[in-house]
Amino acid sequence: MKKVDLNCDLGESFGAYTIGQDEEVMKYITSANIACGYHAGDPSIIAKTIELALEHDVQLGAHPSYPDLVGFGRREMLCSPREVYDMVLYQVGAVKSMCQALGGELQHVKPHGALYNAASRDFHTALAIAEAVYTLAPQAILFGLANSEMIKAGGQVGLKVAHEVFADRTYQDSGLLTPRTAEHALLHQEADCVRQVLEMTRDGRVTTVNGSSIPIQADTICIHGDHPTAVPFAQRLRTILEENEITVQAVGKWKA
Amino acid sequence: MKKVDLNCDLGESFGAYTIGQDEEVMKYITSANIACGYHAGDPSIIAKTIELALEHDVQLGAHPSYPDLVGFGRREMLCSPREVYDMVLYQVGAVKSMCQALGGELQHVKPHGALYNAASRDFHTALAIAEAVYTLAPQAILFGLANSEMIKAGGQVGLKVAHEVFADRTYQDSGLLTPRTAEHALLHQEADCVRQVLEMTRDGRVTTVNGSSIPIQADTICIHGDHPTAVPFAQRLRTILEENEITVQAVGKWKA
Amino acid sequence: MKKVDLNCDLGESFGAYTIGQDEEVMKYITSANIACGYHAGDPSIIAKTIELALEHDVQLGAHPSYPDLVGFGRREMLCSPREVYDMVLYQVGAVKSMCQALGGELQHVKPHGALYNAASRDFHTALAIAEAVYTLAPQAILFGLANSEMIKAGGQVGLKVAHEVFADRTYQDSGLLTPRTAEHALLHQEADCVRQVLEMTRDGRVTTVNGSSIPIQADTICIHGDHPTAVPFAQRLRTILEENEITVQAVGKWKA
Amino acid sequence: MKKVDLNCDLGESFGAYTIGQDEEVMKYITSANIACGYHAGDPSIIAKTIELALEHDVQLGAHPSYPDLVGFGRREMLCSPREVYDMVLYQVGAVKSMCQALGGELQHVKPHGALYNAASRDFHTALAIAEAVYTLAPQAILFGLANSEMIKAGGQVGLKVAHEVFADRTYQDSGLLTPRTAEHALLHQEADCVRQVLEMTRDGRVTTVNGSSIPIQADTICIHGDHPTAVPFAQRLRTILEENEITVQAVGKWKA
Repeated sequence: MKKVDLNCDLGESFGAYTIGQDEEVMKYITSANIACGYHAGDPSIIAKTIELALEHDVQLGAHPSYPDLVGFGRREMLCSPREVYDMVLYQVGAVKSMCQALGGELQHVKPHGALYNAASRDFHTALAIAEAVYTLAPQAILFGLANSEMIKAGGQVGLKVAHEVFADRTYQDSGLLTPRTAEHALLHQEADCVRQVLEMTRDGRVTTVNGSSIPIQADTICIHGDHPTAVPFAQRLRTILEENEITVQAVGKWKA
Repeated sequence: MKKVDLNCDLGESFGAYTIGQDEEVMKYITSANIACGYHAGDPSIIAKTIELALEHDVQLGAHPSYPDLVGFGRREMLCSPREVYDMVLYQVGAVKSMCQALGGELQHVKPHGALYNAASRDFHTALAIAEAVYTLAPQAILFGLANSEMIKAGGQVGLKVAHEVFADRTYQDSGLLTPRTAEHALLHQEADCVRQVLEMTRDGRVTTVNGSSIPIQADTICIHGDHPTAVPFAQRLRTILEENEITVQAVGKWKA
Repeated sequence: MKKVDLNCDLGESFGAYTIGQDEEVMKYITSANIACGYHAGDPSIIAKTIELALEHDVQLGAHPSYPDLVGFGRREMLCSPREVYDMVLYQVGAVKSMCQALGGELQHVKPHGALYNAASRDFHTALAIAEAVYTLAPQAILFGLANSEMIKAGGQVGLKVAHEVFADRTYQDSGLLTPRTAEHALLHQEADCVRQVLEMTRDGRVTTVNGSSIPIQADTICIHGDHPTAVPFAQRLRTILEENEITVQAVGKWKA
Repeated sequence: MKKVDLNCDLGESFGAYTIGQDEEVMKYITSANIACGYHAGDPSIIAKTIELALEHDVQLGAHPSYPDLVGFGRREMLCSPREVYDMVLYQVGAVKSMCQALGGELQHVKPHGALYNAASRDFHTALAIAEAVYTLAPQAILFGLANSEMIKAGGQVGLKVAHEVFADRTYQDSGLLTPRTAEHALLHQEADCVRQVLEMTRDGRVTTVNGSSIPIQADTICIHGDHPTAVPFAQRLRTILEENEITVQAVGKWKA
């Protein structure tokens, strides 16, 4: 039977500020990417988010970022691999310890925003992340863009990896995402998103912007928690996946 | 045979900024209190400081603070016990994970600056710290001002505690420090500092500002790393202690 | 004819985070207290808020704070008068320059949160704020809690001051607010808030928690922008004030 | 008679951290670039640096940066021109107001680190900076790398500009600096630095790495304040310039 994980960025509130609908979205996902304080999140938010995930039996992950609160970690920053290694060690270290202190275990790590993008295309950045994760938690799963340098780096250091796919982004023949700046980068209709997810999870293929059908590995699907329709979409996606006999389950439970 | 630990705040540089003489002072101390990024320290500094301590066989400790980089953690801040619990969990969690990732273990936790002072006199703050440490690392030793609320709170949650004493501060009949704002708060002559340390470590007593001799437990002595004479003082103190048959050894090695 | 100003804290969003309903509340107020980046606000938010206020003919004020983004400036911090002077100079300086660059003028300064509270009761903190404001903008009006040390300090340095009153807080016989921790600190019914505002603005008096009627000067009324009913309350208050022949106008236009 | 300005980055300490030898270097320079709190500097440091410059009759400038304290503003960050405009408005606004409050005037603006580099090669970033400066202080002088996009942008918005040259960097035939990553990017001998400065200031020419002699406009020379020999070098350079009948004077005094 086919299996897939649903992940979402959570714990992205900060102090008096609220972002996301964590309590609602928790009901439908299987893996939570918890902000580590660098682009979002503070110690109290992190603790609450871990507790909330544990209540909903959602698996715990760390979501490290460049140090860029005002830019929400979306600004490209030029950091050396050693700096990336150290900042991932710190952030994932904090969240890992907090997960354990609060009764859970770290299942995975997924870099955030500009760091995710940098690690998707730059092997040295990806390797720095993978090495930091391996040093901290060799059993953790590295979430990376399907077919990206991050997946390659995770494999090289001996980490389990999960290929992440997107419901609402289109793919190029290379297996990588169409850049957001290009035409046809996004699927705007929910029906198209659902169809693409089914194609990817059931058939292990995706139809690219050029109309080709290429193989793709879809281990985990990203739910955009800050999207206004995140909750109903996650709910609907989960129902449809189950109707199509695809088990929605945290990747740590089925990825050997 | 009597034993005592020498501790020092380390890893308090930040980015392009340098504070302290970590490499030099490491040679003479037995326990390092490593800044966790809230009053000082950044991930790269923390990693380097852990590595440096491991090279010198100095025991590793976390040195959490209020979030106050510009005030170096010395400004009193009104934080609730829950906020203190969460911020200690985060900071100590990060440093604990980094110690393990780099091949060491967390021996102890010593709060910094205004947080140390608040926890010395306010039991609820002290308890929040102690609970966070116990949750993360029940085998860790809590360093607190001798005779303070912090020692009481550590004991209450089941942590091992180390009574910290100061070479250059005078004591009141209560067993607590003379406030810095009072007259005679400081010992200015090195000879007086050395004499006081010997009295505390060898005899388990201290002569107060009133001239009384009271019992005091001196498990660990604070070396002020930002003091210009920190290095020669640490070196001299160590020599004199050993001449007086007091073993200078990390507290984790002799505190059951 | 009686006049009163309606002020509200605005521009308290930050990066990707939104707080408040600035566009809506701008329609009903006369003075905007613009966050300066220390408890909230970033340069882009500040610029947008100034532009929005100018569009609505709302007068511009700076809303400086302790440096405490994660605590939203609500945490007491022990800062020396010189530190307060410098941080107010920096924050108000930034917002004053931005107001002028974008075609406006700084009408007033109102400290935020814990800094406002500290300056209400501690004359040295209040004086540091007042001196910084006077040095930067001697024509600006200092907003302070009615009858507080801030009003006294503003007067002493030669600033115009505006006594601020609250619709939903009760008053003690001393003319100061009932502390939030005490019973009966808040008026929960909108009708009671409206009645108290009318009493203060029309009659220059307030009925205290003890039932006494004491004189109070009500130059400006604080609208809590983060309150869910802020917008309808501001709208209703404005209507009722005008029905009672109290002109709602920015304090800078009628305070000589 | 030929004239040249000597500028140096100052006020780059932060809280408990000290960088630079501001008091010493102030004696030999004519223009101070004062950190604005984003890569370095805090309100108290800024105030002290302004006062120090005023004492030494050194002209005041703002030195805005990307928001990157831990990276000292040296990390490339992808910010939109509007974001750059806003952050320059805020930082320069703060320092301009503080200069005026403390009895001085803002002479110039020089972007820092990665922002300087980005503005040297990217016209849109340069234009955003120039527009912010012009909006705040149309009489201020924009310091930019000689022959760069920043000079072009400053001229386009109607600002006076000062071409900045470096004593210890080599030049390409294009008139731009040899990238630091290339061979022969640096002059290591003080004698070579002095010779190059004389060539640039006296003759208005520079010998490039290829041996060509090209014209260059040298309005202001950068003294690296964090360099260990900054003080003796500034002193020596000043003496030699004066011996060669080149007047060392703040650019604002002779640039019409």
